[in-house]
Amino acid sequence: MYVGKKKDEKVKVTCIIYTSEHFEEQKVKSIDDCFPLKDKPAITWINVDGVHKLDKIEQIGKQLKIHPLALEDIVHTGQRPKMEDFEDYLFIVLNMLQYDEEISEIKTEQVSLILGSNYVVSFQEDEGDVFGLIRERIRADRGRTRKMGADYLAYSLVDAIVDHYFMVLEKVGEQIEDIEDELVKNPTPEVLHTIHSLKRELIYLRKSVWPLREVISRLERWESPLIDKSIDIYLRDVYDHTIQVIDALETFRDMLSGMLDIYLSSVSNRMNEVMKVLTIIATIFIPLTLIAGIYGMNFRYMPELESPWGYPMVYVIMLAVGLEMLTYFRRKQWL
Amino acid sequence: MYVGKKKDEKVKVTCIIYTSEHFEEQKVKSIDDCFPLKDKPAITWINVDGVHKLDKIEQIGKQLKIHPLALEDIVHTGQRPKMEDFEDYLFIVLNMLQYDEEISEIKTEQVSLILGSNYVVSFQEDEGDVFGLIRERIRADRGRTRKMGADYLAYSLVDAIVDHYFMVLEKVGEQIEDIEDELVKNPTPEVLHTIHSLKRELIYLRKSVWPLREVISRLERWESPLIDKSIDIYLRDVYDHTIQVIDALETFRDMLSGMLDIYLSSVSNRMNEVMKVLTIIATIFIPLTLIAGIYGMNFRYMPELESPWGYPMVYVIMLAVGLEMLTYFRRKQWL
Amino acid sequence: MYVGKKKDEKVKVTCIIYTSEHFEEQKVKSIDDCFPLKDKPAITWINVDGVHKLDKIEQIGKQLKIHPLALEDIVHTGQRPKMEDFEDYLFIVLNMLQYDEEISEIKTEQVSLILGSNYVVSFQEDEGDVFGLIRERIRADRGRTRKMGADYLAYSLVDAIVDHYFMVLEKVGEQIEDIEDELVKNPTPEVLHTIHSLKRELIYLRKSVWPLREVISRLERWESPLIDKSIDIYLRDVYDHTIQVIDALETFRDMLSGMLDIYLSSVSNRMNEVMKVLTIIATIFIPLTLIAGIYGMNFRYMPELESPWGYPMVYVIMLAVGLEMLTYFRRKQWL
Amino acid sequence: MYVGKKKDEKVKVTCIIYTSEHFEEQKVKSIDDCFPLKDKPAITWINVDGVHKLDKIEQIGKQLKIHPLALEDIVHTGQRPKMEDFEDYLFIVLNMLQYDEEISEIKTEQVSLILGSNYVVSFQEDEGDVFGLIRERIRADRGRTRKMGADYLAYSLVDAIVDHYFMVLEKVGEQIEDIEDELVKNPTPEVLHTIHSLKRELIYLRKSVWPLREVISRLERWESPLIDKSIDIYLRDVYDHTIQVIDALETFRDMLSGMLDIYLSSVSNRMNEVMKVLTIIATIFIPLTLIAGIYGMNFRYMPELESPWGYPMVYVIMLAVGLEMLTYFRRKQWL
Amino acid sequence: MYVGKKKDEKVKVTCIIYTSEHFEEQKVKSIDDCFPLKDKPAITWINVDGVHKLDKIEQIGKQLKIHPLALEDIVHTGQRPKMEDFEDYLFIVLNMLQYDEEISEIKTEQVSLILGSNYVVSFQEDEGDVFGLIRERIRADRGRTRKMGADYLAYSLVDAIVDHYFMVLEKVGEQIEDIEDELVKNPTPEVLHTIHSLKRELIYLRKSVWPLREVISRLERWESPLIDKSIDIYLRDVYDHTIQVIDALETFRDMLSGMLDIYLSSVSNRMNEVMKVLTIIATIFIPLTLIAGIYGMNFRYMPELESPWGYPMVYVIMLAVGLEMLTYFRRKQWL
Repeated sequence: MYVGKKKDEKVKVTCIIYTSEHFEEQKVKSIDDCFPLKDKPAITWINVDGVHKLDKIEQIGKQLKIHPLALEDIVHTGQRPKMEDFEDYLFIVLNMLQYDEEISEIKTEQVSLILGSNYVVSFQEDEGDVFGLIRERIRADRGRTRKMGADYLAYSLVDAIVDHYFMVLEKVGEQIEDIEDELVKNPTPEVLHTIHSLKRELIYLRKSVWPLREVISRLERWESPLIDKSIDIYLRDVYDHTIQVIDALETFRDMLSGMLDIYLSSVSNRMNEVMKVLTIIATIFIPLTLIAGIYGMNFRYMPELESPWGYPMVYVIMLAVGLEMLTYFRRKQWL
Repeated sequence: MYVGKKKDEKVKVTCIIYTSEHFEEQKVKSIDDCFPLKDKPAITWINVDGVHKLDKIEQIGKQLKIHPLALEDIVHTGQRPKMEDFEDYLFIVLNMLQYDEEISEIKTEQVSLILGSNYVVSFQEDEGDVFGLIRERIRADRGRTRKMGADYLAYSLVDAIVDHYFMVLEKVGEQIEDIEDELVKNPTPEVLHTIHSLKRELIYLRKSVWPLREVISRLERWESPLIDKSIDIYLRDVYDHTIQVIDALETFRDMLSGMLDIYLSSVSNRMNEVMKVLTIIATIFIPLTLIAGIYGMNFRYMPELESPWGYPMVYVIMLAVGLEMLTYFRRKQWL
Repeated sequence: MYVGKKKDEKVKVTCIIYTSEHFEEQKVKSIDDCFPLKDKPAITWINVDGVHKLDKIEQIGKQLKIHPLALEDIVHTGQRPKMEDFEDYLFIVLNMLQYDEEISEIKTEQVSLILGSNYVVSFQEDEGDVFGLIRERIRADRGRTRKMGADYLAYSLVDAIVDHYFMVLEKVGEQIEDIEDELVKNPTPEVLHTIHSLKRELIYLRKSVWPLREVISRLERWESPLIDKSIDIYLRDVYDHTIQVIDALETFRDMLSGMLDIYLSSVSNRMNEVMKVLTIIATIFIPLTLIAGIYGMNFRYMPELESPWGYPMVYVIMLAVGLEMLTYFRRKQWL
Repeated sequence: MYVGKKKDEKVKVTCIIYTSEHFEEQKVKSIDDCFPLKDKPAITWINVDGVHKLDKIEQIGKQLKIHPLALEDIVHTGQRPKMEDFEDYLFIVLNMLQYDEEISEIKTEQVSLILGSNYVVSFQEDEGDVFGLIRERIRADRGRTRKMGADYLAYSLVDAIVDHYFMVLEKVGEQIEDIEDELVKNPTPEVLHTIHSLKRELIYLRKSVWPLREVISRLERWESPLIDKSIDIYLRDVYDHTIQVIDALETFRDMLSGMLDIYLSSVSNRMNEVMKVLTIIATIFIPLTLIAGIYGMNFRYMPELESPWGYPMVYVIMLAVGLEMLTYFRRKQWL
Repeated sequence: MYVGKKKDEKVKVTCIIYTSEHFEEQKVKSIDDCFPLKDKPAITWINVDGVHKLDKIEQIGKQLKIHPLALEDIVHTGQRPKMEDFEDYLFIVLNMLQYDEEISEIKTEQVSLILGSNYVVSFQEDEGDVFGLIRERIRADRGRTRKMGADYLAYSLVDAIVDHYFMVLEKVGEQIEDIEDELVKNPTPEVLHTIHSLKRELIYLRKSVWPLREVISRLERWESPLIDKSIDIYLRDVYDHTIQVIDALETFRDMLSGMLDIYLSSVSNRMNEVMKVLTIIATIFIPLTLIAGIYGMNFRYMPELESPWGYPMVYVIMLAVGLEMLTYFRRKQWL
C-alpha cells in the first residue's frame, strides 16, 4: 500500500546504459527494454520516478526479481534509511532532502536503490532529483563513472544525496543567523516559534542522517561480491561527510538551545525593566500625593495654611522628596 | 498468582490446524483435542483467551510441558517483553497495545507465545486481539502463512502486534496536534496536564517497545532449530518497524518538551502583558492625582485658585502630562 | 572495623541442615556445631544475625576459611552489591530493603552470602529478614528447595530479596499517587519537599539495584562448579525481575520530574492569578480617585460644583468609567 | 618543566628496605645509597618528596633508568591518573586528595609510582601524605606487607590513597548537610554560591576518580610479570572502593541539583509571599481612599455632608468594605 | 574547490631535508627540488603554506601521487580531523588552533599531513604556525628528531598542535574567570552574551578535539609499516594530552552552565530586591494617604477638625502607623 499523497502522474522509467566506450539513454515503457545488454559488461542504470502505481511497481519488481519485502519498503515510503543484502542484489533506502525556497521548508523524498552485479535501479517518489550532475558526467564521460562498475554508480548516487544535505544545512544555518539578529533587536514570541520550528526541523534531519551513517558504515564493512574493495575508500569518504552533517546538526542544536536561553532571559529582562521604571515613577509620586493630601485636610488650626510661604514651601518640599528618592534609586543602581 | 483484575469470564481456547491443503478451526474444551495431528506436518495454533483461571492454565501448561517459570510469567501479567529458549520451544512475551477510543487511553495486554516445532500457543489476557487478519488469511489461504511453518506463524503474530503500534502512535500524534493548536489559541493549565499525561503515555510505550526491540533482535540472531533461516528476513523487517516506532516515540517526546517550553513562555508572556498594561494605566493616573491633590490643598495664598483660568488650565496640564507619558511609553515600545 | 550503629545485642547464629529426607534446625553457639554432616550430601544453611561483634565474626571467618577481604566486606557494611569468586566459595553482597511503615522510610540492610559446595552462610546486620517463606518451605518440604543443592538455596535467598523490592516500590508508588492528588488540590512547598525526598529515595534504590543487576548477570554467566547449569534459568528469572525493578524506578523518576514541572507551574499560575485580580481592582479605583480628587480642588470658578446635578453626575461618571474598564478587561480575557 | 608553585624547599628522599626478617629506613642524599640490596630478595621503597628541582629528579630518573616521557609526567604535575607499562617497570600516576580543614578546601597532590620487580619509587609534590599507616605496619611488621612483594606495596599505596577519598567525601557530605539545613531556614544567595562551589569540587573529584577507576581496572587485567596473580583480589577490592567513591559522587551531585531546585523555588516562594501580602494591603486601602476622596469633593449640594451621621457612617462603610475584601481574599485562600 | 576566503597570496613551499649528520632547508618553487635524496635514508619535510591555488596543489598532488580524495580533503578545508591509510602513505587531517589576542577569538586552521616512509608533507591554510620549535630543534639538532624517522617528525607536528590547545584553553580559562568576577559585581545582559559566546567556542573546540582523540588512538593502534613500534609510546603521550584537553573542556562547560544559573538567579534576586523595597515604600504611604484623605472630607460635623490638637495628632497617628508597618516588615524579614 502506497502511503504518500495520491497523484495521477504517470510512473516514468528512464534507462541509461553505458560502458567506457558506449552510452545510451532512453525513456522506456517496459523495463524489459532496459536489458538488452544483460550479462554483458555494460552498466545499466534504471531510474523510476513515482512509486504510487502499485501494479507498475509490482511488475518492475517481478522483472527484477525483487523480494516482496523490499518492494513493500519501496512503495511504503517514509522508511528509515537501511541496507539489506538479498545476495543477488543489495537494497538501500535513503532520504533525499531538498530545500523548498518558496515555503522555507525541507522536503524529504525516499530514494530506494537496488544494486545488482551490473545494474542499479533507483526509485524516487517524484520527478526532480539531485542526480543531474551524475547524468551529465556519464553522458560527457567526465570523472571516473564510465570506467567503473555498478557499485561506483551506486556510491555516486549516495554521495550526491549526502552532498545535498550540506546545502540544506546551509539554509538552516542562514535561518539560525537571521533569528540570532532578531533575537537581540526584538525578542517577540514569533522568534520563539521560529526557534521551535527550526528545532523540529533538526529533529527530522537527525532522524534521516543517523541511520544513514549506519547504512554507509555497514556498506563499507560489508563482505559482498557486489561491492569491490576499491570502492571502500569512496564509501569512507561519504561516511566522513555524514559525520560532518551530524556534527553540524549537533552544533545547530546547541546553538538553538543557547538562543532559547537568550530569548527567555531577554524577555524577562525587558519585562523587569518595564516594571522597574514604572514602579519607580509610582513610588516617587505616592509620598508627594500624601503631602498634598495633608494640606488638603480641613483642620481649623493648621498654621502652615495661613502663612503666605506655605504654598511655595510645599513645592520646595515635594521637589526635595522627589529628588532625594531619585538619588537614592540612582545610588542603588536601579536607574 | 494472577495479578490483573479478577473476572468471572471463562477461559476460551481456540484451535486452528492447517497444512497447505487442509484447514480446521474449532473452540475446544480440553487442549488435548488440539493434537490429533501431532508429529504430523500440520501446523497447530492454539489461542488461549484469559489467563486468570490458574487451574486451567496449569493444566494447559502440564499438557504442553511448559516450564513452571514460563507459566508463572504467562499468568503474572505485566512482564517485560522477553524471549527465552527452553530448547523444545521458545517462550516469547510481548505487549499488545490497543487504543480505546472511548476513554482516549492506551490499553496494554500481555501476549505470551510458545513456539514449538509445529505449533504455536498464544495466551492473551482478554478476548479481542489484533490477529483477525492473520486468521482470515489462514482460512482463505491468502499470503504465505499456509505454505510456511510454525515459525512464520509466530512471526506473523509478532508482526501484527508491532503493526498495531503504528495505529496507537497515530492516535497519540493526533492528540499532540490537537494540543498544539490549543497551545497557541488558549494556553490553559489543562493543556499542561494533557501534555504531561501524553508524556506519561510515551513513557509507558517506551517501556513496551525498547525491550521488544531487544527481543526481536535476539530472535533474529538466535541459533535455534525452531526458527528457519528463511524467517530471518521477515524478523529483520519487524525489527525495522520497531526501530521506526522508537524513532517516532523519540520525536514525539522532543515535540512534547518543546511544547512545554512554548506553554510556559506563552503563559508568562500573557501575564507580562497583563501586568504591563495595568501598571501603565496606574502610572499615568498617579501624577494626575497628585495635581488634583495639590489644588485641593487649603492654603490661604494660592493665586491659581483665584484665577478664572485655573480650573481649565489644570485639565490642560493633566492632558499634557498624560499624553507625554503615553508617548514616552510608546517610544520605549512598552505599548 | 564495623561502621554501622553500635549495639549490645548478641550475635545470633542459626543453623538449618537438610536433605530431601532429613531436616534439622537449631540455634547454635559455636559454628562448629553446624558441620556434623560436612562432606555428606546434606545442605547446610547458616544464618548469622548481627555483624557488629568483630571477634565473633572473625572466629566464624576462620572456621569457614573466609578470605580476610571478604570478611572485611561483611563487617564493613554499606558495600556496593557485588560477587567474588574465591574458588572454594562464591561471596555475594546484596542490599535487603524493607519499608518501615511507622516512619515511612526505606530501611537498607546488607546481606552477605557465602555459597560453598554444600553450604550457604548468610550474614545480616539485624534480626528480621525476608527469608521467612524460604524457611517454611524447607521445614514443610514444599517447593523444590529440599530436592536441590546449595546453589538453589542461594538463588532462593537472592530471589526473596529482589521480590521484596517490588513491595518497597509499591509503597513508593502509593506515596507518589498521594502527592499527585495533593499537587492538584493544594500545591504547598511541603509537596515540593516530599517530591525531593522521594527523588532521593529513588536515588538510593537505584544505587542498590543497578549493581545488583550486574551481580546477577555475572552469576548467570559465571563458569563455576558451585553453580549448576540447571540454576541458570532461575537466575535469568531473577535477572528479569531486577530489570523490571529498574524500569519501575526509571518510570517513577520520570513521573517525579513531571510532577516537579506541574508543581512549579501551578505555583506560578496561582501567584499570577492573585496578582492579576488584585492589580485589576487597584487599576479600576485609581481613575475614580482622580475624579474625586478633581472635584476636591478649591478653584473659585468650577461651574460643576455649583450645579445641583454635579454630585450625582460624578457617581454616574465613576460608574461608567468603572464598567468600561471591567468590560475592557473582560474583552481582553484578563477576568 | 615543573608547573606547580615555585618553592625553595629541598627535595627529600627517604628509603625503606625490608625483607620479612630485616628492616631498614633512612633519609638519603643520593639514590644510589638505596640499592645495596639490589638483585637481592629485599623490597626497596624510595619516597621522593618534592618534584620541583629538575636536576635532582633527572638524576634520580637516570639512576632508575626511567623513560623521559614518564619523567616529564612526574615533574609536570596535574596529569590525569594513568598507568603505563615500560616493561622493566610500571608507571602509575594518581591524585592524592587531602581535605584542608582550615580553608575548607580539597587539596590535590599528584603521586607518581614506579613499580619495579623488587622496588617501588613514589614521587610526591610536597611532604605530608596518607602513607603513615603503611610505614608503621612495615616497621612493626604488622599485616601482610613485609611478607609480600613490591606489587603488594604498590597496591597498599594505591589503597591508602583511595581510602583517603572516603574521608574527603565525608567532609563534602557534612558540608552538604550543613547547607541543607540553612536552605530551609534562610535561603540566601550565599547558599547558592556554596552549592555551586560544592558542585565545582565534585567536578574536580570526578576528574580524579573516573580515570583512577580505569587505571585500577587496567592494573587488575594487566598481564605483567611485575604483578603477581595473588594481588588481583586486592586490586579488585580497591576497584570496588573507587566504584563506591564514584557512586557517592553521583549521589552528591544529584542531591546538589535537587537542592538548587529547592533553593530557587523557596526564593520565589518567599518573594511571592511578600508581593502577595503587600499587594493585599494596597488593594484594601485604595477603595477606602476613594471613599474619603468622594466626601472631600466641594459640591455645593451633597446631602450626606450636612447630616450629623455622615462622618461616623463613612467609618462604618470603610470598615464594611475593608472586611468584605479581607473575607473575599481569605475565601480565595490568598491570605 | 577551495572553500575558505579567497586570497592572492602565493603558495609557499618550504623543504627541510635532514639526516642525523646532515641538514638542509630551502624555499622551493617546484616540489621536485625536494626529492634529491629520495630513496636515501634522509628525512624530507615539505611544508606547503596556502591551499587556495588549485593548480599548484594538484601539481604537488600529482608529484607525490596523492589520491584525489585526499587532495580534495586538503583543499576543501573545514574537514573533521581524520586518519586514512593509503598504504604508501598515511593521510592525517588536524585542526590547528591559535588564539588571536586582538579580537579575543580562536582561529582554526586545517593542517593536513602526508606521512610517507621517509617524508612528511604538511599543508596549511596560511603562513604562521606552531611548528617553530620543531624547526629550531631540527636545525640545532636538539632533542631526538634528527635521530628518528619520518614517523617521529609526524608525531612531533601532531604534538605541537595538541600542546598549543592548552594555551588556547588557558585563554578561555582566563576569560571564564573574568566573567566570574563580573557576575558577582554586576550581572548585566552583556555577561550573559559573553557566557553564550564562550559556550559556542567550547562547542567548536569540542568538535575539533573529540575526533582528534579518535585519530590519535587509531594511529597508535594502527598496524602500518610506516609507524614504528617505538613511536607508540609517544603517541600514547599525545593521546593522554588530548584526553586532558577534553577533560578541561568538560570542566569549562560545567562551570559555564553553573555560571548561567548564578547569572539568572542573581538577576532575579536583584529584581526581587528592587520590587520589594519599592512596594514596601508604596504600601507604607497608602494608609497614610487614606488618613489625610479622611480629614480632607467636608462633613459639617467632624469633631476632630475643631480641636486644636487634631492636626498634630494626625502626624502622631501617621508616624505610629508608618513605624508599625516598618516593624512588621522587619519582623517578617522583608527588610
